[in-house]
Amino acid sequence: MPPAGIPEIVIDRLPLYVRALALLATNGQEIISSKELGEELGVTPAQIRKDLSYFGRFGKQGSGYNVAQLLDELREVLGLTQRWSMALLGVGRLGRAILSYGGFGSQQLHVAKAFDSDPAVIGTEIGGVVVEDVKNVAASLKALPVEIAIVAVPPSAAQPVIDELVAAGVRAILNYAPIAVRVPPGVRCRNVDPVVYLHAMTYYLKSDTRGSSDATALSREEAGHAFEL
Amino acid sequence: MPPAGIPEIVIDRLPLYVRALALLATNGQEIISSKELGEELGVTPAQIRKDLSYFGRFGKQGSGYNVAQLLDELREVLGLTQRWSMALLGVGRLGRAILSYGGFGSQQLHVAKAFDSDPAVIGTEIGGVVVEDVKNVAASLKALPVEIAIVAVPPSAAQPVIDELVAAGVRAILNYAPIAVRVPPGVRCRNVDPVVYLHAMTYYLKSDTRGSSDATALSREEAGHAFEL
Repeated sequence: MPPAGIPEIVIDRLPLYVRALALLATNGQEIISSKELGEELGVTPAQIRKDLSYFGRFGKQGSGYNVAQLLDELREVLGLTQRWSMALLGVGRLGRAILSYGGFGSQQLHVAKAFDSDPAVIGTEIGGVVVEDVKNVAASLKALPVEIAIVAVPPSAAQPVIDELVAAGVRAILNYAPIAVRVPPGVRCRNVDPVVYLHAMTYYLKSDTRGSSDATALSREEAGHAFEL
Repeated sequence: MPPAGIPEIVIDRLPLYVRALALLATNGQEIISSKELGEELGVTPAQIRKDLSYFGRFGKQGSGYNVAQLLDELREVLGLTQRWSMALLGVGRLGRAILSYGGFGSQQLHVAKAFDSDPAVIGTEIGGVVVEDVKNVAASLKALPVEIAIVAVPPSAAQPVIDELVAAGVRAILNYAPIAVRVPPGVRCRNVDPVVYLHAMTYYLKSDTRGSSDATALSREEAGHAFEL
């Protein structure tokens, strides 16, 4: 059982460790030093040791980490020893791409339900899921509850849909709608908007173009992985 | 010209301000207080005043912000007075969704070039862009340089493609490939992997399920917008 008060930034990094360790395991690597793992992830070995120290002792000083063992333990920490069912709200282009995405299954995630408001889409099967009428979210999630939802609806529909999901017991939401949405305490919402990420980058491109490279020199050191989260 | 040493976290928030202000402007709101804007964005009024203070004085104490003026000034800060051309690498399901995404144009962003390795896709037109052979990235970007690229290729192809983009002068990359990639100093890379975000949330769901709600009480306070970046 993980101790209380672990910084969110640490929890946010653990899936990156899991992703990297899974790849190493697939490639047959059995042992990795915090230095090597740090290079894989673009973080310092000290950071890795500090992050892992929240969850007890992994590996032995100097002998590196056992890849498979560390992977198993971190998956346990993240709750990935169970399979998580998700509901997808919005089956437009992005929703279709999400439904068809093959990468969830191996990650203990799967889209169990999909909802849309378009009569042309409702009832169709995509990625093995039959799209339901968004009007039936409450009833459908009462029959088969899910704790995680992916929201890929237009901005104007996002908040109402999220309110309904929360009322239906959803406690974790990945929101692709490009709008600031509200969730009550106890519900986690992660927003993903490529335009927001791109606009943060144009700031630096513009600054560089204007020759104020000093202004971004520091930030540049952190380029790449530092931007993952 | 913005001063040097502005924290990345502040730059990362500015696009959220722009997004919210643009919506307010569209809805005809002319003035907004830092309190209202904070509620829109899920940050404190003090945070907003502090963030904006890096870029000079906006609005007058007590009289709130002029929505259109603040929007214009923040767009200027972020380099959004010009239109940015982007290259898309990988025209699979996600790539198609990105090519067809209508939300870029109004945000001073547009996909000018798209590349793929699939002969069945090369030469086809999607979203007004004719897909080119990824083999021709270097020559194509030499003829028409872009500074921003969106990478939506399979994990194994990501690093080689990114190395080629960097060699071709790309300095900002939005990477959707679920793998840790390296970029040299001076190049910014933002990674977007829904599985990573979802796995960070399963940690809290699992912890709650196990009844260790205290462990996440603090984090919960920060739920929602705090997760935007």
